[in-house]
Amino acid sequence: MHTYKLLIAYDGTNYSGWQIQTNALSIQSLIEKALQTLLKHPTSVIGAGRTDAGVHAYGQVAHFCCEQKLDLLRMQASLNGLLPSDIRILNIELASDDFHARYSALSKEYHYHLHLDLVQNPLTRLYTYHVLHCTNITLLQQAATLFIGTHDFTSFASKALYGCAAKNPVRTISRLDVITVPGGLRLEFEGNGFLYKMVRNITGTLIDVACGKIPLENIPTIFAKKDRGLSGRIAPASGLFLKKVSYPFPIK
Amino acid sequence: MHTYKLLIAYDGTNYSGWQIQTNALSIQSLIEKALQTLLKHPTSVIGAGRTDAGVHAYGQVAHFCCEQKLDLLRMQASLNGLLPSDIRILNIELASDDFHARYSALSKEYHYHLHLDLVQNPLTRLYTYHVLHCTNITLLQQAATLFIGTHDFTSFASKALYGCAAKNPVRTISRLDVITVPGGLRLEFEGNGFLYKMVRNITGTLIDVACGKIPLENIPTIFAKKDRGLSGRIAPASGLFLKKVSYPFPIK
Repeated sequence: MHTYKLLIAYDGTNYSGWQIQTNALSIQSLIEKALQTLLKHPTSVIGAGRTDAGVHAYGQVAHFCCEQKLDLLRMQASLNGLLPSDIRILNIELASDDFHARYSALSKEYHYHLHLDLVQNPLTRLYTYHVLHCTNITLLQQAATLFIGTHDFTSFASKALYGCAAKNPVRTISRLDVITVPGGLRLEFEGNGFLYKMVRNITGTLIDVACGKIPLENIPTIFAKKDRGLSGRIAPASGLFLKKVSYPFPIK
Repeated sequence: MHTYKLLIAYDGTNYSGWQIQTNALSIQSLIEKALQTLLKHPTSVIGAGRTDAGVHAYGQVAHFCCEQKLDLLRMQASLNGLLPSDIRILNIELASDDFHARYSALSKEYHYHLHLDLVQNPLTRLYTYHVLHCTNITLLQQAATLFIGTHDFTSFASKALYGCAAKNPVRTISRLDVITVPGGLRLEFEGNGFLYKMVRNITGTLIDVACGKIPLENIPTIFAKKDRGLSGRIAPASGLFLKKVSYPFPIK
């Protein structure tokens, strides 16, 4: 049996998310379908992160196992030939037998794109969140530093709809950079794991601090109360990108 | 009578182009429809450049005339409220009575985005042309310099489908910069006017030079023969952006 590691990019606009769901089009299901066509047997594909409906990726990682020894370049070209143009396999490599896209991951990096111009740019509308009145960027930057480190993130996690909520709500954000880009900001989150909708809830809270809706000094209390009702709005899926999943090197 | 100047951005993906056409959705027709709703009478909107089906704009200019003295910010917000999210009015201003979006224009700037990575990026697929085997960028840059200046561009103009072909095929390209960007190139064209599909035909010819299909030294002969059959492929609409239209200042 061989284990293969896939590096995947997708435009999440037209999908119900990474994860297979009944009666909805998912990225995982389309890749499994393409693999079944090529390998002639059903093949499970396990992703590193279950991105939600509308969330994009440029660096999602997944793995699958099969008996055959594959010609990697040929397999990549064949998969891309079968997949729609909004999903691309960027790379395939042979991983060690115990490699698991999710459990072997050391850290993940998510980017959130905020568009702050008065009028929304129609050319980036599918890949940003257009926010008006998000004026105090200094305050947003100060608030961002309060999320770095190891915390109980219960107040920034949405309840999962079905039974896969994390039992331990403690996570470590090792980096949360606020970077100025033309027309807005890019928030770069890096951490050992993220709770359900945590990046979007933190982003929404940062925006609410920047527009004066949540006072900066309330953030420690919001953490302490462990109540999602106290944190800010949820930022929409369109602005979110799964950018990178890191593994021990050599991959295993 | 007042003349108003509009600055417009659009994602051309879902449109048959700027210009009104029977049985096809155009940007011009949607703006005219929104103006008619707000002004309560039919209003013609004249654009600076007739971008083709699928071509994008971030800096298209248009004008319209009306008797009413308009509240500019309110009019902009109302138009954007009526228009779909892939068309945005970036600015409205009062122009002098003799301002004409097309005839008053001094120069236009078009950008063409080439994506050269081995695998297409699904997140930019609607806004770039993905080209494989476009390897000799130095040659492409050398070829680009041959287009700068005043030339008869007949060999790089497609025949218009209906009777609006320019009688004089001489144009001046004042600038054609080849700029390296992550994953590819941005070609920046600036000139006093462009023939039908001229930017896309020049771009295709530059690509054919870079991939060894057209020898660099053939370019002067291609110009001289005035035959579209001798120049290169036509680059697709998706990579093309109308970036800026320049007018004498103060606008008139």
